Amino acid sequence: MAELTPNPSFSLTVRLELLNRAGTLAKVTQAIADVGGSLGEVLLIERSLKITKRELHIDASSTEHAERIVQAIKSIPEIKVLHISDRTFDIHRGGKIHIQNRIHISSSSDLAMAYTPGVGRICRAIADNPENVFSLTIKSNAIAIVTDGSAVLGLGNLGPEAALPVMEGKAMLFKEFADIDAFPVCLNTQDVEEIIQTVKNMMPVFGGVNLEDIAAPRCFEIEKRLQEELDFPIFHDDQHGTAIVSIAALINALKIVQKEMSEIKVVINGAGAAGIAIARLLQKADCHGIILCDSKGIISKDRENLTPEKRSLAVADTGTLKEALVDADVFIGVSAPKVVTRDMIRSMAKDPIVFAMANPIPEIQPELIQNDAAVIATGRSDYPNQINNVLAFPGLFRGALDCRAKTLTTEMYLQAARAIASLVPPNVLDKEHIIPSVFDERIVPTVAAAVQQAAREAGVARL
Amino acid sequence: MAELTPNPSFSLTVRLELLNRAGTLAKVTQAIADVGGSLGEVLLIERSLKITKRELHIDASSTEHAERIVQAIKSIPEIKVLHISDRTFDIHRGGKIHIQNRIHISSSSDLAMAYTPGVGRICRAIADNPENVFSLTIKSNAIAIVTDGSAVLGLGNLGPEAALPVMEGKAMLFKEFADIDAFPVCLNTQDVEEIIQTVKNMMPVFGGVNLEDIAAPRCFEIEKRLQEELDFPIFHDDQHGTAIVSIAALINALKIVQKEMSEIKVVINGAGAAGIAIARLLQKADCHGIILCDSKGIISKDRENLTPEKRSLAVADTGTLKEALVDADVFIGVSAPKVVTRDMIRSMAKDPIVFAMANPIPEIQPELIQNDAAVIATGRSDYPNQINNVLAFPGLFRGALDCRAKTLTTEMYLQAARAIASLVPPNVLDKEHIIPSVFDERIVPTVAAAVQQAAREAGVARL
Repeated sequence: MAELTPNPSFSLTVRLELLNRAGTLAKVTQAIADVGGSLGEVLLIERSLKITKRELHIDASSTEHAERIVQAIKSIPEIKVLHISDRTFDIHRGGKIHIQNRIHISSSSDLAMAYTPGVGRICRAIADNPENVFSLTIKSNAIAIVTDGSAVLGLGNLGPEAALPVMEGKAMLFKEFADIDAFPVCLNTQDVEEIIQTVKNMMPVFGGVNLEDIAAPRCFEIEKRLQEELDFPIFHDDQHGTAIVSIAALINALKIVQKEMSEIKVVINGAGAAGIAIARLLQKADCHGIILCDSKGIISKDRENLTPEKRSLAVADTGTLKEALVDADVFIGVSAPKVVTRDMIRSMAKDPIVFAMANPIPEIQPELIQNDAAVIATGRSDYPNQINNVLAFPGLFRGALDCRAKTLTTEMYLQAARAIASLVPPNVLDKEHIIPSVFDERIVPTVAAAVQQAAREAGVARL
Repeated sequence: MAELTPNPSFSLTVRLELLNRAGTLAKVTQAIADVGGSLGEVLLIERSLKITKRELHIDASSTEHAERIVQAIKSIPEIKVLHISDRTFDIHRGGKIHIQNRIHISSSSDLAMAYTPGVGRICRAIADNPENVFSLTIKSNAIAIVTDGSAVLGLGNLGPEAALPVMEGKAMLFKEFADIDAFPVCLNTQDVEEIIQTVKNMMPVFGGVNLEDIAAPRCFEIEKRLQEELDFPIFHDDQHGTAIVSIAALINALKIVQKEMSEIKVVINGAGAAGIAIARLLQKADCHGIILCDSKGIISKDRENLTPEKRSLAVADTGTLKEALVDADVFIGVSAPKVVTRDMIRSMAKDPIVFAMANPIPEIQPELIQNDAAVIATGRSDYPNQINNVLAFPGLFRGALDCRAKTLTTEMYLQAARAIASLVPPNVLDKEHIIPSVFDERIVPTVAAAVQQAAREAGVARL
């Protein structure tokens, strides 16, 4: 695991009792360093004549690495480990989101207004004029985050319960970045018709749907059908969120290497939800030298049994991913850990752009190709240039909800990508800074404005 | 409308500009009094040499009454109405509940722990051991508030959108009183099988289901089937919540009139969800002199085409509600506004107990029978003795979630009722105080403890 960088997703809190003798803490920090742990905060909890109690925050690169760090600490005779906890598990205990009330219910007059009998007047007002549901309930700001748990992160078909932590995390991001109230809908079915029917049944509460971690090709059908049958924004984040941010990053990466979108050769590895959507949005952005690969290599017109989505993007070439990459300008990986080697990157055209976005472990670790690639991006928050969907979906939905868009269009996605790219102007553009930080507060208003304008121009805005 | 008491559900905020001359405000207050408005706060906003600006909070008894009050104020020449707003509408604008994040996402290390890549470890932990979903997600504290909008309060089949304000209000009560995270699920279908299937599909996120405002007899089938097919607490509040609190109130009302549960004659008007459940819980509480009425009068064994629920409670007697009430000890109304007259109450046995719980307008206004009934209760928060389900469902679910009950039993309901009744000890028991205030902080822990104990005794507690 030496090639992996210690990071907060494997962060430990360790409480120690140390003999109060000069050099004891040094032994601990040295032991952590010897096994490659990354020491963060060191807190002093208590000190007496004989002992001190300390709390250490230590980043590891994996669960096994964390275990090795703990063992290294335990092997020091002068210390006693009092408590070890995993910070990622700690923040998940009891769930990451909660319901918050707009007002406290602390008197019978609060009850009479927020609940019966007063609420009956609000019900009547909506029954009399259905438009009122947008102003008098949560609907106009509420999004369903829908999954069937069939493609959880890069981990596969873990099922709806195991997908829930991702959906809760997503809800947190909607709230934190765009003040949107999103709620996890983890479905106990992987049947296309049943998913569609269930979502339609639940729509009275929601103003939009964010589809998440649903496997291809099922996700295409679900998205298409919901778009046809509902008058609300339906967004499959794994497709379009990834596509929007990838294209935003690519727009800026191309400026660094001084290449044109219309002239480059792009190899996309992974023909699932994200790969297909990236290819389509690239086409919309005037890029046509696209070679899409899946686990069998180049998606060639010669291949049989292709899904309609793959068929529509098939090329005349045949060969392996390795062959496809020769002389390519851009590699975009939305596939699996470690499927790309350093040699493959070295076979690319001059100044290769490498977006290795498999989660949680990229197609190739950035550490390995620092000197080979002109620009590197990943899907991880602990490396530079994170292709993070959080750059897109909060602003996109903020814009769509604010103008009550009936649907989302590819043009809206492209304008969102350009809006994101525009936030890294030439004077700050750098190989380690091709996209804005997700904490840049201009992002949501900028993306929302671009999306609203595109919605108005397309005639799909209702407000 | 003179018999209705002004109440906060029809509360106005009125901003006025008055000539700054002695007696002008008196004219306003007199005008409000003349048309029966109830003046609450009077705020001074601004005062100059010539004018004053004030804000008045005024309770009315209906929308029409509110309009009359506004007209009365407007007819005074010395004043100008600057702004009128409806306080109940004001607190509903934009919705009453929101999502709250457990932690702020303000750094990439927060992102790496709460979302990718760290969250992948939590997903894995749940996939490896499904029990972990209870400790690492919102599930163990999350309730779905499910409705099809077919019986919204006493207002009828208004549909799922118009039901949403009630479900949001319910979610507020779950949060405020029991710190439970409940989310509205308003379904765009009134088909029994589809409701059942949709709820089952959504269950990965939830630890229980509160069914709400679903019409009888559909509600019975849905509740029964979900109880059979799911291992979680399924509660139809309109049935059992109302039954629990009604029986709690009746236990204490009987102490005041010194009658025994096993000896009384009870007339229940309304054979929908609540009426059936009250009758059944009364039987469980050892009351057997029950006459159930519907819009056709007494539910008699002679009648044809009775639903199975009505059939199981049918009696030998026949007749109208009026006839049933002669010599009855208790009237329990869960029916419709104004179906009972003062004469009917006067025909009851000595010291009649009258629970007129139709919402928002009771079977008979309490003002009309103050001198005729020994104890009066309603469903409204603006009269004494409110039979309010909020006394039951928060504590019931708190107890059921805390011991991870597989199901809810009638014995758990009866113990909840007794727990509620126990909070009004003899020394404070009074005809206007037969049940505790919903703001009594002992209620939730007391009910939860009683429910947990009953769950353990029944062997349905998993923790």
